[in-house]
Amino acid sequence: MPSYKAPLDDVSFLLNDVFQFDRYNNLPGFSDASPDLREAILSEAAKLSEEVLQPLNRVGDKQGCTLHADGRVTTPDGFKEAYKQVTEGGWLGLSAPVEYGGQGLPVTLTQAVAEFQSSANMAFSMYHGLTMGATAALLVSGSEEQKAKYVPKMIAGEWTGTMNLTEPQCGTDLGLLRTKAAKQADGSYKITGTKIFISAGDHDLADNIIHLVLARIEGAPAGVKGISLFLVPKFLVNDDGSLGGHNGVSCGAIEHKMGIHGNATCVLNYDNATGWLIGEENKGMQAMFVMMNEARLGVGVQGLAASEVAYQNAVTYARERLQGRSLTGVKATDKPADPLIVHPDIRRTLLSIRAFNEAARALVIWTALQSDVAHRSDDAQQRQAADDHMGLMTPIVKGVLTDLGFANAVQAQQIFGGHGYIADNGMEQFVRDARIAMIYEGANGIQALDLVGRKLPRNGGRAVMAFFAEVNGFIKEHGEDAAMKPYTAPLAVSLGHLQKATTWLMMNAMAQPDNAGAAATDYMHLFGLVALGYMWAKMAKVAQDKIAAGEATPYLTSKLVTGRFFAERMLPETALRLTRVESGCGTVMELPAEAF
Amino acid sequence: MPSYKAPLDDVSFLLNDVFQFDRYNNLPGFSDASPDLREAILSEAAKLSEEVLQPLNRVGDKQGCTLHADGRVTTPDGFKEAYKQVTEGGWLGLSAPVEYGGQGLPVTLTQAVAEFQSSANMAFSMYHGLTMGATAALLVSGSEEQKAKYVPKMIAGEWTGTMNLTEPQCGTDLGLLRTKAAKQADGSYKITGTKIFISAGDHDLADNIIHLVLARIEGAPAGVKGISLFLVPKFLVNDDGSLGGHNGVSCGAIEHKMGIHGNATCVLNYDNATGWLIGEENKGMQAMFVMMNEARLGVGVQGLAASEVAYQNAVTYARERLQGRSLTGVKATDKPADPLIVHPDIRRTLLSIRAFNEAARALVIWTALQSDVAHRSDDAQQRQAADDHMGLMTPIVKGVLTDLGFANAVQAQQIFGGHGYIADNGMEQFVRDARIAMIYEGANGIQALDLVGRKLPRNGGRAVMAFFAEVNGFIKEHGEDAAMKPYTAPLAVSLGHLQKATTWLMMNAMAQPDNAGAAATDYMHLFGLVALGYMWAKMAKVAQDKIAAGEATPYLTSKLVTGRFFAERMLPETALRLTRVESGCGTVMELPAEAF
Repeated sequence: MPSYKAPLDDVSFLLNDVFQFDRYNNLPGFSDASPDLREAILSEAAKLSEEVLQPLNRVGDKQGCTLHADGRVTTPDGFKEAYKQVTEGGWLGLSAPVEYGGQGLPVTLTQAVAEFQSSANMAFSMYHGLTMGATAALLVSGSEEQKAKYVPKMIAGEWTGTMNLTEPQCGTDLGLLRTKAAKQADGSYKITGTKIFISAGDHDLADNIIHLVLARIEGAPAGVKGISLFLVPKFLVNDDGSLGGHNGVSCGAIEHKMGIHGNATCVLNYDNATGWLIGEENKGMQAMFVMMNEARLGVGVQGLAASEVAYQNAVTYARERLQGRSLTGVKATDKPADPLIVHPDIRRTLLSIRAFNEAARALVIWTALQSDVAHRSDDAQQRQAADDHMGLMTPIVKGVLTDLGFANAVQAQQIFGGHGYIADNGMEQFVRDARIAMIYEGANGIQALDLVGRKLPRNGGRAVMAFFAEVNGFIKEHGEDAAMKPYTAPLAVSLGHLQKATTWLMMNAMAQPDNAGAAATDYMHLFGLVALGYMWAKMAKVAQDKIAAGEATPYLTSKLVTGRFFAERMLPETALRLTRVESGCGTVMELPAEAF
Repeated sequence: MPSYKAPLDDVSFLLNDVFQFDRYNNLPGFSDASPDLREAILSEAAKLSEEVLQPLNRVGDKQGCTLHADGRVTTPDGFKEAYKQVTEGGWLGLSAPVEYGGQGLPVTLTQAVAEFQSSANMAFSMYHGLTMGATAALLVSGSEEQKAKYVPKMIAGEWTGTMNLTEPQCGTDLGLLRTKAAKQADGSYKITGTKIFISAGDHDLADNIIHLVLARIEGAPAGVKGISLFLVPKFLVNDDGSLGGHNGVSCGAIEHKMGIHGNATCVLNYDNATGWLIGEENKGMQAMFVMMNEARLGVGVQGLAASEVAYQNAVTYARERLQGRSLTGVKATDKPADPLIVHPDIRRTLLSIRAFNEAARALVIWTALQSDVAHRSDDAQQRQAADDHMGLMTPIVKGVLTDLGFANAVQAQQIFGGHGYIADNGMEQFVRDARIAMIYEGANGIQALDLVGRKLPRNGGRAVMAFFAEVNGFIKEHGEDAAMKPYTAPLAVSLGHLQKATTWLMMNAMAQPDNAGAAATDYMHLFGLVALGYMWAKMAKVAQDKIAAGEATPYLTSKLVTGRFFAERMLPETALRLTRVESGCGTVMELPAEAF
């Protein structure tokens, strides 16, 4: 059976040392999150994840969710009790506004906790994860009345939330959506249509479900300009907050899918369901996009989370499984064979996963901090810079962390040999579960297009220029330091590749937009590598300083080795990505569709 | 529902034009395989795969195999009838010796057919695939009596075969195996032990199952030098060929696994089962290795097969699914959106899969032809060269084609977005099924070590030098041809990388074997890229010649574009692989085991 330990040391190192959390004490909520409180919160989150959520991960996969003849949807054994512990612990409200019952602490802490929970049980964690996303959308776009009526219950976890975008004929291209909203005399709307792939769409964990639904008001313009966002509760809510009758929404089916079986992915049928407009008519896309940056960051965290838990289990197996002898002579003389971990190819695999995990975690924490600054700072310039960073990094965190998180789960599974293919060992579940993160909240190809087509040119490239300046500044500041050379020198080369690719795009994508499309995925990965490489350089510097100050712990010395592995073997991939970007769209577009 | 069309045009192009099958007419069996007969065989194989095997692929995945309370194992609905059609069509005997009821045709044809069958239904095809492997082992190492008694029935498919290597405590490291063989007065042995992960280990498709079992004779040396190979039938066989009593072997469990559910992967318990020695005592490993080259080539074909069928379905979806508009303006003016295939990122994905598929198929056909030469030529030098090629290419075909075959199935699934995650669309099954090919018949890390540690240095590097000379010769011959430059120039660069990596290994692996271990996987992929790049150069030359001769078919012009895509975007990965090889084992080996 697989196991999990939350990486508390690593999170503390990032919060306290690398990103110096206390520097942000001027922002609301930060000074409340004292070092002691942070440690207490993270330890409690670790305990909940390790002891309550993780033991239900295999159960959830095996049992899945069930749609009963009477229309009820039930979750796997134990989910209800675990959900109760999550809500009673106040975990949904960690970063939510105090006036609605939240604790108002930084989002950065919530993202750290989200990694633990997703490593422990991805399918389970989606129930409250989606609720938090829906709550965020309501907080930004809902009316005061809507917020007062729904948000406190959602923060308490008494009610959960969903996002309803996809329909059979439309996924990425929401302009094609057909779900209808007919305005009623009382100002409400009757919603009719079919939504598919609705995560946490129905279940028995909470008393009510607040569906946020994209639909088209009768007479609205075609395409994305005619889409509005509606709030459609499963059970209607009376003015006193008590539950009324069942609304016209029902689960038509639970999808049979590759993984995340513990989460009920539903077909939801809306049949004259009563809904209320959120925000303005025909402005549903904007309301949805507010939520999407946070949600995409959260999905990136799922990629990291899968990679981390798969790594941990692969390490345990590699230490215990005796197979073959070291190429340099017998190591475990008292045993019939050496443990797998003596073999260089096993270590290479483990280090490549780990070198990703630690840098990806840094990138998540950094980006989450910028999210906090963007939302909480009273300095307009700081807010703008942070918002630029968030916008730029969101598609990278989502696309790169989920692509590599999945690939790493596959590599970790490989260490188990045939045992990795067997369900009970749990490794193949990590692979199946992680796979969805590359798809939902915008397939990774869409993330790449968002980066190249929208985030890069926005405001004359202000965000990307700021990123280049920051990385360049770091390299200049520490480039002469001999101990830092193994990290900064390869980073400088790779940053050069990224700058070259960026210039190439500026020169070639305007005249021929297909050059951007053909380059997008490789450009996104090139950017991701540089961002991860920068994280490694920052971490190495802090680790070296701490070691120089007398703290030569195994944690810190391992950090330096893992960072060198990244610089030597992983970062050089930027050259390949640049070659692909510069090869342009010619060959890609040459064949007629029928020749494929 | 997924569909499949066997790539008959591509196989014909390779057999007839690229490798000029008829050049080998001096070898036994080749002149029998006239162009007309080849076409008839391949068309029939295509029909069987498309119409009989493919429709059972989803059924097999959904139902899986069942172990009943009475010990019987049954296969999914329809498998029995389909198996009957496979055996009645004589497909198991296509390349088997005429004296045992086979047709004696080249192995090359069998490998081409194997691709079709595995694309159509991988789990099903393993039942007869393993039988053919067991038959091959018996033909090489069995006594005349054993061959006469068992082989004709196995070639007819009346009985199937299995390979029993793995035990709970030993996979790769067979030296650890514990299954015992006790010699009896009549010359037979009593076999006792537990074998796991036995593909096609029990089922209801055939009257008997001939298990080939590795075991240790009482008093044999420890390690791999004390292992012998035994023939253990499920039902004992009387001298007249009729079936006797049930032998002491039973299915203890069917493994619950990630994919290939239609194949019964069994725990087999041997309890004083009667077995007969195959070949000499303590020479079981050699007998097993004979079979392994062919089996590994077959597993590589499974990687290609998964990639091909996943590609075909992704193309169909990309042509039909309307989503978004082309970056260069509306293409399908009569439709609410353009088909996915207008988008460069979708085309990039499809082309990268296809550029692999076509070159991988060429590599398989080339290697299978060398296998035929190695076994059938009467020229000792030809045989030696062919055998060198086979030995060198086997780990590359197995390791590279299954790594990339799986990755391509994942990429093809990605084109479906959320629909790729849903079971009924079949894409996620291709991914789950393809995953095992990276593991069984020697996990891919082991293939890489086999290449670097055994195949490369063997006979002073004779095989690898011959490969370099051949590729270099081709580049020299056609390098001045301007039309060939897009293929030969990048190939020359990548061949340089491979030669540099090879030299690095020669200089650095003797003194420090961990340098070989740390480089192995990257070296294998570097070699694979060059081999595939060479296949593309050969195919491009033939296509150009045919086009120059007036045959400018869409098939041939597409070939040239796809080959350019490979040269521009995929082949340059060799530089990255070389960088990794040259980075050595230092960082990889630096951390103590407990620091992971």
